[in-house]
Amino acid sequence: MKSPGHRDVQIDALRDAGDVRRRDVIAVEEPLEIRVMRDGLPEADENGGTGRSLSITMRTPGHDAELALGFLHGEGVIRAPRDVVDVGHCGTTCNVIRVTVRADLPLDLARLQRNFYTTSSCGVCGKTSIEAVMQQAPWPRIGGDLVIRESVLRALPDTLRGAQREFDQTGGMHAVGLFTATGTLVGAREDVGRHNAMDKLVGAALADGALPWAERIVLLSGRASFELLQKAMMAGAPVVAAIGAPSSLAVELAESAGITLVAFLRPGGCNVYGHPHRVLTTRTS
Amino acid sequence: MKSPGHRDVQIDALRDAGDVRRRDVIAVEEPLEIRVMRDGLPEADENGGTGRSLSITMRTPGHDAELALGFLHGEGVIRAPRDVVDVGHCGTTCNVIRVTVRADLPLDLARLQRNFYTTSSCGVCGKTSIEAVMQQAPWPRIGGDLVIRESVLRALPDTLRGAQREFDQTGGMHAVGLFTATGTLVGAREDVGRHNAMDKLVGAALADGALPWAERIVLLSGRASFELLQKAMMAGAPVVAAIGAPSSLAVELAESAGITLVAFLRPGGCNVYGHPHRVLTTRTS
Repeated sequence: MKSPGHRDVQIDALRDAGDVRRRDVIAVEEPLEIRVMRDGLPEADENGGTGRSLSITMRTPGHDAELALGFLHGEGVIRAPRDVVDVGHCGTTCNVIRVTVRADLPLDLARLQRNFYTTSSCGVCGKTSIEAVMQQAPWPRIGGDLVIRESVLRALPDTLRGAQREFDQTGGMHAVGLFTATGTLVGAREDVGRHNAMDKLVGAALADGALPWAERIVLLSGRASFELLQKAMMAGAPVVAAIGAPSSLAVELAESAGITLVAFLRPGGCNVYGHPHRVLTTRTS
Repeated sequence: MKSPGHRDVQIDALRDAGDVRRRDVIAVEEPLEIRVMRDGLPEADENGGTGRSLSITMRTPGHDAELALGFLHGEGVIRAPRDVVDVGHCGTTCNVIRVTVRADLPLDLARLQRNFYTTSSCGVCGKTSIEAVMQQAPWPRIGGDLVIRESVLRALPDTLRGAQREFDQTGGMHAVGLFTATGTLVGAREDVGRHNAMDKLVGAALADGALPWAERIVLLSGRASFELLQKAMMAGAPVVAAIGAPSSLAVELAESAGITLVAFLRPGGCNVYGHPHRVLTTRTS
């Protein structure tokens, strides 16, 4: 069975032991255009298609509907399965997906087509970005009761790694995993873009009616950026762990949103960047 | 001296040897809004500022003017130093930068505010993306005479690593390096976003009148995506090497543009994804 996530190309493998001309498996990257239209009100846009184009992302094909739903959830456009009437590829192409939302959904398309970080004054800063996303937060508070043992946390990267089938093939995919507080993997998505992997995971949960993630731990295969924390906050995740480093704005957003941010999660230990009460260590218990 | 690229925060470092509450250095991530205006024709925009907002990127502060110039070069807006009249931060904020271009520069701002991958039909695909960017190529052909010894290529990652001062501090920065064919590092930039690091390097070269990069090798600290290859192609680079994996669309663009794409550049060897004639191995010479 051929996965849409990877394909093979001819390469020259230069090695000390001798050069070989052979086939190599690479991660597929293709653009996906996300369009939105309101149910019962088809809007012809300037490109002659239907729906309004909101975003084009370079993604790995597969789980496109989930990606579109997760993206729209992250932007605060949709909040529950009932907001979505239909989602599917547009016409004969696999690289345009259209989400039809219910007729009475509040929808400020002009705002969405601008970047939401922009404010009405001539100014944009980290503080503005955090205030802007905090205003969108759909949950009254991030799950306060969840705790996770440090020993459980330490085991998550190996579990996620075992589920990274596309990475095994290509060596070039980000992954995002979703875990219970006892370390059971309940979902994982891979993509050339880490924000896409997160959108796919959120979109799947939204479609299943499984948001907010009040009892869930999110694990990122790479670094923790503002964008990923913002999407996790919109999904209501109380703990976000990353194998790589965090950025300053990711740390600030986690602090403001009440998210426990763990980074550099590696065999020798990990760092907790705020709200450490959710991590139970055997040494402190 | 305090770098704007990193700052420190309070963390809980959980280690087998014992937990410590201490300071940790993290990479700074802040939004930068890039605006463009035409010389002599200030345009008031809907936000009450001056210039048209083209993009907001989450970047590490520093080299912002280079970032803006490199971004505009990658989009095909500016091609030479003479296209730019002025570049500087807007008002009292460090997170808005405005580029003033010469009065008679062809400038399709409406096209730029849409995404350039979008075509006039209801369709977007990898082939469309490649055709769209190939039409923008400012150089008649990618430097055809450059060759690099495989032994020189193999040494580049260590050289770049030695120049990654922010990575040393934070463990969370991408880098892009520029080398001569004999392996001398002539420029490097770091950023939380790899596309920003590339834009900063291209912008510095543009300002110096050092484009195209016909005699240069570009090294990416991570993976090779379509976006990075597109920016390298606009800069005229004949060889792009990456320490990580390439994506399918990066391989296809390199093939179409005549770029030698090297990936998985590691101590044991490397893979060449098309146009291998520019890499001289001792085994084949």
